[in-house]
Amino acid sequence: MRKICIFDAQILTLIPNIIITDMKNISIGIDIGGTNTVIGAVADDATIIAEASLSTQKYVVLDDYINALVSNIKDILAKCGEHTLRGIGVGVPNGNFYSGAIEMAPNLPWKGKVMLADLLRRHFDTKVVVTNDAKAATIGEMVYGGAKGMKNFVMITLGTGLGSGVVVNGSLVYGADGFAGEFGHSVAIPGGRECGCGRQGCLETYASATGIKRTAFELMAKYNTPSKMRDIPFSKLTSKDIYIFATEGDALALKAFDFTADILGRKLADLCTVLSPEAVFIFGGLANAKELIVDATKKYMEQYMLPVFRNKVKVLPSALLGTNIAVLGSAALVA
Amino acid sequence: MRKICIFDAQILTLIPNIIITDMKNISIGIDIGGTNTVIGAVADDATIIAEASLSTQKYVVLDDYINALVSNIKDILAKCGEHTLRGIGVGVPNGNFYSGAIEMAPNLPWKGKVMLADLLRRHFDTKVVVTNDAKAATIGEMVYGGAKGMKNFVMITLGTGLGSGVVVNGSLVYGADGFAGEFGHSVAIPGGRECGCGRQGCLETYASATGIKRTAFELMAKYNTPSKMRDIPFSKLTSKDIYIFATEGDALALKAFDFTADILGRKLADLCTVLSPEAVFIFGGLANAKELIVDATKKYMEQYMLPVFRNKVKVLPSALLGTNIAVLGSAALVA
Repeated sequence: MRKICIFDAQILTLIPNIIITDMKNISIGIDIGGTNTVIGAVADDATIIAEASLSTQKYVVLDDYINALVSNIKDILAKCGEHTLRGIGVGVPNGNFYSGAIEMAPNLPWKGKVMLADLLRRHFDTKVVVTNDAKAATIGEMVYGGAKGMKNFVMITLGTGLGSGVVVNGSLVYGADGFAGEFGHSVAIPGGRECGCGRQGCLETYASATGIKRTAFELMAKYNTPSKMRDIPFSKLTSKDIYIFATEGDALALKAFDFTADILGRKLADLCTVLSPEAVFIFGGLANAKELIVDATKKYMEQYMLPVFRNKVKVLPSALLGTNIAVLGSAALVA
Repeated sequence: MRKICIFDAQILTLIPNIIITDMKNISIGIDIGGTNTVIGAVADDATIIAEASLSTQKYVVLDDYINALVSNIKDILAKCGEHTLRGIGVGVPNGNFYSGAIEMAPNLPWKGKVMLADLLRRHFDTKVVVTNDAKAATIGEMVYGGAKGMKNFVMITLGTGLGSGVVVNGSLVYGADGFAGEFGHSVAIPGGRECGCGRQGCLETYASATGIKRTAFELMAKYNTPSKMRDIPFSKLTSKDIYIFATEGDALALKAFDFTADILGRKLADLCTVLSPEAVFIFGGLANAKELIVDATKKYMEQYMLPVFRNKVKVLPSALLGTNIAVLGSAALVA
């Protein structure tokens, strides 16, 4: 509830005992990624009032992670001044909207089923809603971004893995069990690269920040072309490095981007045959490489497209690049 | 409008001038397949009152086909006695719900855009609704079949090609342009078999009546195993022959079914990652081979499935096998 007081300041001197309250509504949005967790306190007008982040990878023991998360949320809320807490929304890989649990997430340190909503409710007497991190981003794009007013679109988030959210007839697709939208685990190359999910050849082992790095190392092995990447070990090379080298004209770095766009474009053409979306939005660090990823993916998608869908489906960078769309989307779950 | 009269027959003798009318409502359902077109006059209780069929392949000239179709519809209506015509529903490959047209259907004789609804309206002063043949079957399964009450399911029709319909959140997915659900043209093997759509490796070139025949010929070429199929030319062998040989223990025919189920199971596992359906229904002649297709597809689908979806998704033969589900579903479009 937001109390709005409009008055002339001088009135205060006439009624000295009045108490003015302009209680802010705060929604906590949490984006748990394979590498980092970002927490934001979001006001009703979608501004992020306070923010914090912690390493996800560092906390191998679940209890330690929950304690660190709770402590960060409390710190952030303390910075918000007087407020009403609407709730806590969490976007997390394999987060289940129906159960509030994280179930068998391949890129997170904790195995099995983590009852995240229940664990957070022990510390906060408020509504807690959990969903897939990419679904949170999809809601963010739909509410605040480029997908406003679209009834059928696909959201792709390129991070450590490849997340996705699908909107059909204006509604987010959760599917029968809440886990729909795992496009990153559709198989791009049968028998291909080992994936954290225990299978092989999943799209996200090719089209993601880690995927493009694996591609770069394959290319260094296959070709003799000189490249600055040859001086950096596997454990150190980042997708950002590859991007910088590509913009400098490094032929292998450019080839790594081209291969990534090719495989993503091919799988998107496949997805279009089933869903016929109006647009595909791409989010994540790699999406900043607009020509090398977004435009190149569109080019390949059109090459592979079933004739009836050609030149119909837009491929666009998220309109919320540079913002923490997953934090906004997560907060929107409880706002 | 259906007028129900319940009375003792003797009353008629007391009121000799009474006129009893029980005007039937008739919906025409048309299923246009690559090989045949089936037309049914369907009553409100889903019984098919009259039926006819004509060869689709035979009519290379569109006008000749339309004339034959119109003539068949008129013949059927003449057999229905006094009735009110609700409309004509058509299920046809690449049929567009929004425009009423057939657009670039790879398995039909007529190229380009065929304004089917407009052409039929020239002959019948009634509502004409066109959709994909597989979408019509999906509506049939949802209204009359095994998918009653399901909110998320996938329908697969194995005929000359592979058709599909997708239901999400209780609604059929048409997508942005009306053509969603072309799962048969998702690519199973990049660079694989030539497809009628102009591309290569589409799922329907493997998992369909024609696909299993192509597989049988590949296997005859690859292995020396004896088989009755070796005495039948390509132009004569049917999927029904392969089924009969398989039930007789023909090793190559069995292998052809196994390969078909493997590739279909793999692509369905892929689709489940995105949609998380409650069930997959399989319709078409091949679905009568329950163990060899339906059960085998389920087995392979589970093998390829992302762990989070394992043992959750049913694979079932259509509950309407043996009926003309596409005719019923098409009729349901206007009923």
